[in-house]
Amino acid sequence: MRYRVVIKVLSLIIIFTSLAMLLALPFSYYYGDNDSAAILISAGIGFAISLPGLFLTSRKREDIRAKEGFAIVSLGWVSFALIGALPFMLSGTTAGFADAFFETMSGFTTTGATILTDIEAVPHGILFWRSLTHWLGGMGIIVLTIAILPFLGVGGMQMFKAESPGPTVDKLSPRIASTAKILWGVYVFFTLFETGLLMLAGMSLFDALCHSFGTLATGGFSTKNASVAAYSSATVDYIIIIFMIIAGTNFSLHYKLFTGKFSDFFKNSEFRFFISLIAFSTLIIFFEVLIFHYHDAGKSFQDSLFQVSSIMTTTGFGTADYEQWSITAQIILFMLMFIGGSAGSTGGGIKVIRLLLLLKFAYNELIRLLHPNAIVAVKVGGQVIDRKVLINVAGFFIIYVMITAVSVLIVSAFGIDFTTSMGAVAATMNNIGPGLGQVGPTDNYAHLPAALKWFLSFLMMLGRLEVYTVIILLSPTFWKR
Amino acid sequence: MRYRVVIKVLSLIIIFTSLAMLLALPFSYYYGDNDSAAILISAGIGFAISLPGLFLTSRKREDIRAKEGFAIVSLGWVSFALIGALPFMLSGTTAGFADAFFETMSGFTTTGATILTDIEAVPHGILFWRSLTHWLGGMGIIVLTIAILPFLGVGGMQMFKAESPGPTVDKLSPRIASTAKILWGVYVFFTLFETGLLMLAGMSLFDALCHSFGTLATGGFSTKNASVAAYSSATVDYIIIIFMIIAGTNFSLHYKLFTGKFSDFFKNSEFRFFISLIAFSTLIIFFEVLIFHYHDAGKSFQDSLFQVSSIMTTTGFGTADYEQWSITAQIILFMLMFIGGSAGSTGGGIKVIRLLLLLKFAYNELIRLLHPNAIVAVKVGGQVIDRKVLINVAGFFIIYVMITAVSVLIVSAFGIDFTTSMGAVAATMNNIGPGLGQVGPTDNYAHLPAALKWFLSFLMMLGRLEVYTVIILLSPTFWKR
Repeated sequence: MRYRVVIKVLSLIIIFTSLAMLLALPFSYYYGDNDSAAILISAGIGFAISLPGLFLTSRKREDIRAKEGFAIVSLGWVSFALIGALPFMLSGTTAGFADAFFETMSGFTTTGATILTDIEAVPHGILFWRSLTHWLGGMGIIVLTIAILPFLGVGGMQMFKAESPGPTVDKLSPRIASTAKILWGVYVFFTLFETGLLMLAGMSLFDALCHSFGTLATGGFSTKNASVAAYSSATVDYIIIIFMIIAGTNFSLHYKLFTGKFSDFFKNSEFRFFISLIAFSTLIIFFEVLIFHYHDAGKSFQDSLFQVSSIMTTTGFGTADYEQWSITAQIILFMLMFIGGSAGSTGGGIKVIRLLLLLKFAYNELIRLLHPNAIVAVKVGGQVIDRKVLINVAGFFIIYVMITAVSVLIVSAFGIDFTTSMGAVAATMNNIGPGLGQVGPTDNYAHLPAALKWFLSFLMMLGRLEVYTVIILLSPTFWKR
Repeated sequence: MRYRVVIKVLSLIIIFTSLAMLLALPFSYYYGDNDSAAILISAGIGFAISLPGLFLTSRKREDIRAKEGFAIVSLGWVSFALIGALPFMLSGTTAGFADAFFETMSGFTTTGATILTDIEAVPHGILFWRSLTHWLGGMGIIVLTIAILPFLGVGGMQMFKAESPGPTVDKLSPRIASTAKILWGVYVFFTLFETGLLMLAGMSLFDALCHSFGTLATGGFSTKNASVAAYSSATVDYIIIIFMIIAGTNFSLHYKLFTGKFSDFFKNSEFRFFISLIAFSTLIIFFEVLIFHYHDAGKSFQDSLFQVSSIMTTTGFGTADYEQWSITAQIILFMLMFIGGSAGSTGGGIKVIRLLLLLKFAYNELIRLLHPNAIVAVKVGGQVIDRKVLINVAGFFIIYVMITAVSVLIVSAFGIDFTTSMGAVAATMNNIGPGLGQVGPTDNYAHLPAALKWFLSFLMMLGRLEVYTVIILLSPTFWKR
């Protein structure tokens, strides 16, 4: 591995993070919350740290190889979070560095789990930066899953290489830049569109922007203690529902929509399965909530659709305390946490396409029992899926389940109860935010011990970067020359 | 499918079940509990139902084909449980047929989950029959996993075809009979050995036999309300620990031991991993129990080793209420429930060898990321595992996890809390018996609604017959001519 290449890219990421912080300044000045110094100093530290790295140059144009790609992706997210945590620390918003790092990692990984107990008391500049970490993390993840991971061969992601306008050459090439520009265009368009709609629904520019950042990144940080419930507005709820679903959809599919390929959109197997799962889960929870809790069809539908969309897209905005609903409803939501959004979206979790492939894979094994000599291929949308991709996805699922199990064990070792342990692992590893038990929708992560906050921050990154990208760095083979 | 072949074999199974019931009569007469009539009438009904089926003959010798094999295995277990439930019904031991069927299916699947609230009040003939269902089920499962399933190609079981003295021909052949005889010899030997030791430790012949049946079959039905804890004897505990571990080991390995191949035993990768998992889990729980609960090293070691062995081998005997231990200890036990015993043992669960293969499979996918063009084979005990077997095992794991998730959802829909739903599914599908929450080690399954008892009975069978064997019967393709 050529460390100078890695350090140079990381320095660029830190410069970019520091520049982005400055975007919070107008809100800081406008609301006069005295948080501008914290933001300026943080950005200054970022520049100071990263400047030397920029002078690392070599004569020939440097292509990034697979190993360096893995290092850049994982260390990039860590650098992001380390520098991004500074404004929280310097403004005194968080008590310790574990809290600041947790909050920032939660932002950049588009998780939305918070350690803040009174969000509305936080200065506006810091709150804006907090929501902006979501939005930047969402940008990062779109490029990562559509352009970088398929190239790195992580967890079956190469299956999208052919479908998406990503790079097809052997080395991570400048084509990433053009792919990124197209996808970010779509991302910016939707963000501004939602911001406009939310303002029409009565939100201030500040709140509208922050909630749009949280929606499009499937993050879930709100500017209100009560999350989206604070607005008590069906209009706001439905606007956010629509954009959460958009954010949980593959962004290359959105790009196709913009180029007029409408039929591609609705013929897409992953999208259809995604929508079916949302519809089916909403239907069950709707009836449960209607009959046993609300006795009001409109409100039952609104809340169940919002909660299902919020959890399945791994956003984590809240309009209802789903822990008051039946255990069955909670288990459905818990299962949706693991399924997550579509590949190439900003959503986390295992991803809808992987579930679809796994179901077809398992069904195939059944057919093979009846016809041992038949050659049965797994098809998605009429296309035969390469056996290598299937094995890759199966391996991903196996390691995902095992890491989940071991993580629940580790969390419980901190003296945390069973439901909370399960909820905390599911909510962080799948990048949702609110979980179950003591980290449920009406609680936060403040009361957890610092060591556990570091562990959960690690889980957020592990889940966000599709697991393999992170654990490969922990393998001794990786560091061998 | 030739239905007459299936019906004939099922009739033979019912005759065999009815004959076996008569073995309970001596105990019935000896203890004078007035349960002999119920046993005799049940056996009589069994004979009457099955006699016509025996006259279904055809001219040529009939080999059993794969499809018929699947039907016989699943329907065989159901017939077993239907006829076996009669003594419970006719003696008035159980209140309804759902209870009687649950108890018998729990016996035959070597689960050991009970709906009896006062076991010591049950007549001795019925209690003996109850324990005997374990032992017969254990016999069935050894032949099933070593001889029949590898032939049917279920969940990677074909990997043992080469290792074990099972059939290698294309059709289920008379070689099964000779394999069965060898393995049953080992099974009978260990049962009598344990019975003798337990009698030396002070148990009556009746109790010693019943507990040996429960041990060797990894069943867990006891004749005491307090299970093995009733004896408060370290000798009894350690005897049962040793035989539980024996029962959780592949029986073809035991056969090799008898033929003097000692080194094969300790070189076996699955056995070594099995023992390591028991040792490692015992160690963690030992320290937890020692420090926070018992403050007595001897008792802490005895109880943690007993509970770990009992759960991991899926026996389910109890000497301590593990729900009083820490959540971490409980989660370790919960995870061991899913791992289960070795393949070719009487233990349930996913099986140790499958976990080993899955871990190597996942690790391989990691290596492949670093060296995309390398051909990395999964090896167990120096032998390369066929890719087809790996895919089979991966498919098994995927379907197992998904069925578990959906089952927890179904159980919760009966108004059952989260922990109990998880515990009930884990304890029945993995054939353990006691679970968590309201079906924990000091509770039973009596209080559950009848419909849920039917569902859990189904889960016991599903888990016991390695999932695919049962669900294949539910596929429309199976029934096509």
